[in-house]
Amino acid sequence: MVRGRGEIGVSQIADLAGVSASTVSKVIHGRAGVGTETRQRIERLIRDHGFQKHENSETVPIVEVVFQALDSLWALQIIRGVEQAVRPHGLAVTLTEMRGSHTPESTWARQMLARRPRGVIAVSAEFSEAQLAQLASRSIPLVALDPTGEPAHPIPSVGATNWNGGLVATRHLLELGHRRIAMVSGPDELLCCRARLDGYRAALDAAGVTQAPELVRAAPLYFEGGRDAAAALLAVPDRPTAVFTANDLQALGVYNAARAAGLRIPQDLSVVGFDDLAFTQWSDPPLTTVHQPMMRMGATAAEFLLELAAGRELGEDRFEVPTKLVVRGSTGPPDGTAG
Amino acid sequence: MVRGRGEIGVSQIADLAGVSASTVSKVIHGRAGVGTETRQRIERLIRDHGFQKHENSETVPIVEVVFQALDSLWALQIIRGVEQAVRPHGLAVTLTEMRGSHTPESTWARQMLARRPRGVIAVSAEFSEAQLAQLASRSIPLVALDPTGEPAHPIPSVGATNWNGGLVATRHLLELGHRRIAMVSGPDELLCCRARLDGYRAALDAAGVTQAPELVRAAPLYFEGGRDAAAALLAVPDRPTAVFTANDLQALGVYNAARAAGLRIPQDLSVVGFDDLAFTQWSDPPLTTVHQPMMRMGATAAEFLLELAAGRELGEDRFEVPTKLVVRGSTGPPDGTAG
Repeated sequence: MVRGRGEIGVSQIADLAGVSASTVSKVIHGRAGVGTETRQRIERLIRDHGFQKHENSETVPIVEVVFQALDSLWALQIIRGVEQAVRPHGLAVTLTEMRGSHTPESTWARQMLARRPRGVIAVSAEFSEAQLAQLASRSIPLVALDPTGEPAHPIPSVGATNWNGGLVATRHLLELGHRRIAMVSGPDELLCCRARLDGYRAALDAAGVTQAPELVRAAPLYFEGGRDAAAALLAVPDRPTAVFTANDLQALGVYNAARAAGLRIPQDLSVVGFDDLAFTQWSDPPLTTVHQPMMRMGATAAEFLLELAAGRELGEDRFEVPTKLVVRGSTGPPDGTAG
Repeated sequence: MVRGRGEIGVSQIADLAGVSASTVSKVIHGRAGVGTETRQRIERLIRDHGFQKHENSETVPIVEVVFQALDSLWALQIIRGVEQAVRPHGLAVTLTEMRGSHTPESTWARQMLARRPRGVIAVSAEFSEAQLAQLASRSIPLVALDPTGEPAHPIPSVGATNWNGGLVATRHLLELGHRRIAMVSGPDELLCCRARLDGYRAALDAAGVTQAPELVRAAPLYFEGGRDAAAALLAVPDRPTAVFTANDLQALGVYNAARAAGLRIPQDLSVVGFDDLAFTQWSDPPLTTVHQPMMRMGATAAEFLLELAAGRELGEDRFEVPTKLVVRGSTGPPDGTAG
C-alpha cells in the first residue's frame, strides 16, 4: 500500500542504483535525460525502499482527477464533490480525460508527474504497473473511484452500495405486488452492474419468487440498449409487469419500448432506473430510480486522498457510499389501479 | 487589453513604489507579508507600466477554468473542449466553482494566483477591478466564455450566435406554416437570452407576421419556468400553434404543460428548444432544438488563451461560434397532419 512513508534519501538511492544523485533527482522531478532502463531501476528502488517525505515535498496544491471518459452525465457531480472537499484545504482540481482508453498513456503520466499534484483520483481508470511505481516513487497517493472492475493492485477505492440498491429497487416492486419482474442488466464484466443484478436476485429469492431466466437480459448502458432489451422482454409470453434497469439511460429506452408496444407507465408497466440523473425527474412520468450519490463519492475519494497525502493510514481500503431509492411516478401496483 | 507585453523590471517597480525588490517579488508570486495598500500600489504600477515577461515566466502548465456554477448540464462539454485544445500543448485544466456567486472571492483569487496558471477562462463569471489588476500585473491572460452580460472591461470573449439561432428556429416554424408562434424567453438581464428573443422577433418581422405581445413570456431557464409560462400561453384566446423556448429545460416544461392541456406534440403544438442537451434526443418526441456547440466554445476560448499566453495579439476580441438547428420530432405543420 502506498502510504507516503519512507526510509532513505536521494544519495542512498543513487548509491544503490549506481548513478549520480542528480540522476535520481531528475527521475523524482519527472525531468528528461535519463534512459528508460535507468529510470525504471531507480523507480523500483524508491518504491521498494520507501523515500524520505521531506525530499519530495514540493508538490503543487492541486488534486488530479483522471476520467476514463468525460462524457458520462454524472462526471460533473464527481468533480463538484471533489472540488468542494479539497477547496477548504486550499487545493484546486485538475482534470484529465483518457478518451475512452482504460490505461493512461505514457505522455499523460509524464505530464501529470511534472505537475507534481498532491494526489490522483482515478475514475474508472486503471494504471499500469509501471505507472503505479512512478506514483509510488514520488509519494503521490492514488484513490480509485467507482472502478468498473476489481483493481489489480491494492489501491484504496470508493464506490456505491450497488448490491443494496438492486435489492431495494426490486423489493419496492415486490411490495407493490409485482411477481413477473424483469431486469435489463449491464455488461457482465462491469462489477457495479453485477452487484445490481445480484441484489435483484437476492430480493426475489428472499421473497420466495421463482426467478425466470428469460426475464433477465444484459444490454449496453445506453438508451438503445434498454429499448432493445425491453422490446424483447415485452414479447415474452406472460410478459413482465415491471422492469428494473442497470442505469437511467436504459430506463428511458424501456419507456420508448413500452410506448411502441402501447403500454402505459406505470399502469401497464412499472419501471425503476439506477443513478438518478438530473433529467429523470422531467421524464413522463418522472422516473423512480436508485440515487447514486456521485457528489458524495467524489468528496469521499478526496477525503481519502487528503489523508494519504498527509501521510496518515486509512481506516479502510474500500468504502461504499449509500444508495437510496427515489420513488416517483413510474412505479405502481401491477393491476393498473394507480398512476 | 492584457497582452503579456511589458516594459520594466522588478527593481524599477520597486523604485517607483518606494519598496524593496523582495516586496515586489512577494506581490508577483502571491506570497503573504505585504500590506493591502502597498500591494495595490505595486499592482497598479505593474499594470500601468507593463512588465518584462521573462521575470514572470515560471508559470505552472495549467489553464484555470472558473465556473460561476458547476451545475449546468453543459459545463462538462465546455471542460472537454478546453481540455482537448490545451492537451497537445502539455497543459492540464484546473477547475474552480464560485458556487453561484458572480464575482470570485478574494480567497479564491489568492489561491489561484499562487497556482500561477498560464491563463484563466471565466464561464459566466465576472471579476472585480482589483482582481483584473492582479491578473494583469502577473501577465496572466483572461478570456470570458458565454458571459451573461456585457463585460465591464475589454476582456476577450467567446459566445455563440444566439441571435441567429433564434432567427433560424423561428424561421423553421414559419416555413412549416405556423403564424401564431409564441416564445418563452429567458430573464431580460441575460444578453444571450435577449439575443435569442431578438432573433425570434426579426424572423417574424422578415416574414411579415404581426407580433402578438401576449405570445412572449419571460421565465426562469428551468423546467418549471417553461411549464408555467406555457400553461399561460396555452390559455390565451386563439392559442399559439408553436412555442420557441430560450433553453431546453424550458422546452421540457412546455411538453409537460401541453400534456396537461391534452395537446399532442407536434400534431397540436410544435416545440423548439435551445442548447441541444444530450437527453433531449430521448424525450418523447425527441426535441427539435438549436445546437449550442459548447465543446467548440470551450476549445475556442482555450485557443484565445494560448495566443495571449504566448504574447500574441488576438485578431478579434469577440468570437461567436455558430449555432445550428437540429430538427427532430417535436415540430410539424400547424394543421396536425404530420408527426
